[in-house]
Amino acid sequence: MAPSPLKPGATIGILGGGQLGRMIAVAAAQYGLKVHVYAPDPDSPAFDVAGTATVAAYDDEVALAAFAAGVDVVTYEFENIPRRTAEILAGIRPLHPSADALATTQDRLTEKSFVAGLGIATAPFRAVDDAEGLAAALADLGLPAVLKTRRFGYDGKGQRMLRPGDPVDPAAVMAALGGQPCILEGFVPFESEVSVVAARTASGAFAAFEPCGNEHRDHILARTLVPAPGMEPETAAEAMAVARRIAEALDYVGVLAVEMFLVRGPDGRAGVVVNEIAPRVHNSGHWTIEGALTSQFAQHVRAICGWPLGATGRVGGAQVEMLNLVGEAALRWPDYLAEPGSHLHLYGKGKARPGRKMGHVTRLLPGQAPG
Amino acid sequence: MAPSPLKPGATIGILGGGQLGRMIAVAAAQYGLKVHVYAPDPDSPAFDVAGTATVAAYDDEVALAAFAAGVDVVTYEFENIPRRTAEILAGIRPLHPSADALATTQDRLTEKSFVAGLGIATAPFRAVDDAEGLAAALADLGLPAVLKTRRFGYDGKGQRMLRPGDPVDPAAVMAALGGQPCILEGFVPFESEVSVVAARTASGAFAAFEPCGNEHRDHILARTLVPAPGMEPETAAEAMAVARRIAEALDYVGVLAVEMFLVRGPDGRAGVVVNEIAPRVHNSGHWTIEGALTSQFAQHVRAICGWPLGATGRVGGAQVEMLNLVGEAALRWPDYLAEPGSHLHLYGKGKARPGRKMGHVTRLLPGQAPG
Repeated sequence: MAPSPLKPGATIGILGGGQLGRMIAVAAAQYGLKVHVYAPDPDSPAFDVAGTATVAAYDDEVALAAFAAGVDVVTYEFENIPRRTAEILAGIRPLHPSADALATTQDRLTEKSFVAGLGIATAPFRAVDDAEGLAAALADLGLPAVLKTRRFGYDGKGQRMLRPGDPVDPAAVMAALGGQPCILEGFVPFESEVSVVAARTASGAFAAFEPCGNEHRDHILARTLVPAPGMEPETAAEAMAVARRIAEALDYVGVLAVEMFLVRGPDGRAGVVVNEIAPRVHNSGHWTIEGALTSQFAQHVRAICGWPLGATGRVGGAQVEMLNLVGEAALRWPDYLAEPGSHLHLYGKGKARPGRKMGHVTRLLPGQAPG
Repeated sequence: MAPSPLKPGATIGILGGGQLGRMIAVAAAQYGLKVHVYAPDPDSPAFDVAGTATVAAYDDEVALAAFAAGVDVVTYEFENIPRRTAEILAGIRPLHPSADALATTQDRLTEKSFVAGLGIATAPFRAVDDAEGLAAALADLGLPAVLKTRRFGYDGKGQRMLRPGDPVDPAAVMAALGGQPCILEGFVPFESEVSVVAARTASGAFAAFEPCGNEHRDHILARTLVPAPGMEPETAAEAMAVARRIAEALDYVGVLAVEMFLVRGPDGRAGVVVNEIAPRVHNSGHWTIEGALTSQFAQHVRAICGWPLGATGRVGGAQVEMLNLVGEAALRWPDYLAEPGSHLHLYGKGKARPGRKMGHVTRLLPGQAPG
């Protein structure tokens, strides 16, 4: 049975102090909710918009317990949370998404096995624990392939592309990834990368934003377009149905993002292959702040408070483009600020280090979208 | 000469901790700016979304000086700021809008004289300092008329309606308003109430949102509609031009609201009569958060930072409705939350006392707007 909905005035605890936590906090404030952000870095961007802040490590059990006891629900903005941390929090207050959903999705092998177990297409994959295992997996899957650590990877960190013709020394490759447990993923010849950002409540309500098309640069999201270019309405519907099956199988509460490859068979029929699940609000959903009737952040707040989900339609009939401002790209903020109708977001981070997500820009492009 | 623009990472000091300060703070955060809110009430709603807070009285000169020294620009969310306070702040950091603009607009007599001096229509008015003066002013202007304190009035506080047929005892009426300096305003037979929310920068850039129509209940704004019902495009353009002349004459920096009456002569020609100026973001501009390409709060931040103003057009072609949630009307929040496409805003205030502005709802209504 779903617990009673929270009321305005209640406090949301957010684990993690980056830009995602910051934007969840702003969405919570719109609904008259209070926010308590827990993060180890005293310069965390989310602290700027939170009524209460705790600076402590993610394994500080005393601080975690005090944090949880002072809030009404706990959520998080990143998936690399230790299992023990999630269990401590969940023992004191409702944790959304759940510790189980987190455990399934924070390990690439568990996640892919789970998705494949639902009968949903994924890249071919093999568990790899050592150099011998890697050699065997490569013999199975061939090249190209990508070796990834099972845990703690993001934005291309903790992975190694293995290309045809490259001399592959299994021991050296494993050592380069720190000898951690890995997964080898076979290559999927895809047309483009898309994602579905969706929300589910404890009582089973589900709502997906339409799929968006994502372009990456140096493994970091560079640009999102809505609707996803080249994606037919039937394939978009299939992608949203896949996200729903995943959310239901996880008994998921909150917003999740399912990254997929758009593939096309020799007969021209399109389909989707799931790449990974992010158990949280997602960079490819930033366009919803101005581009959709409900933002992904407001939707996440609604879901974890036990409130009805908001409408997910696009605002007007426009196409929407979201550009990430990574590293020094953020120095061009005056240009984006001066563009009529562009929405500049900066995350309040100090240094524009290479690869650091400093902000984003959303443009509502004129003209009717197809479909 | 305009000072150099601020950069993201700079700190905006906001005097006043209510919902307007709260929404300015959220807009500042979107641009990567930090916020320091100064307010006497430790429960101020704006503290929830501010990185730094000072709880101190508006006449605490030591606290004011420390506050100003720690920020890059100072602004405010309400006009009842003592002159001395404004001057202390302006002596340390740029104050936008200026102490002069504040002085002109926080006194109803000074304000009306200023507007009338620009050749812009106002209600007929007389200064009233005592019972004798009231008797003389009533003899001039007749009934109905409204007696208002020159300063510190808002939402109908500090005013007394005098209707034809009412027995008027000038001494008793003056006493009821605390014997303060007053202004008597003659009656303007108006069709409706409208307002123009606009922004101006130090370098003279100006941008107005289109006029909105306002309905009041018990002297408190109840509902805003955009476009303003019954207002022809030419009259809307005239209203925006009036706001521009006022902003320029005040050498204004920031967002201001000009409340006007829509009037119609015996020949059917429409015009506007200025009622009052609010030197700040305004309740009738809340529709811009979702309804316009730039919100009034983002626009205010742009103006006081020396940045280019944002586009003021409406999002899509929809009509926009903003409902204030006053007092117990906020208890209906679950209904508004469940309305598809409605945007619920709650200000994080504790008690839903009668007359207290607890939140608002913005609805983007389907269909094309006229014009």
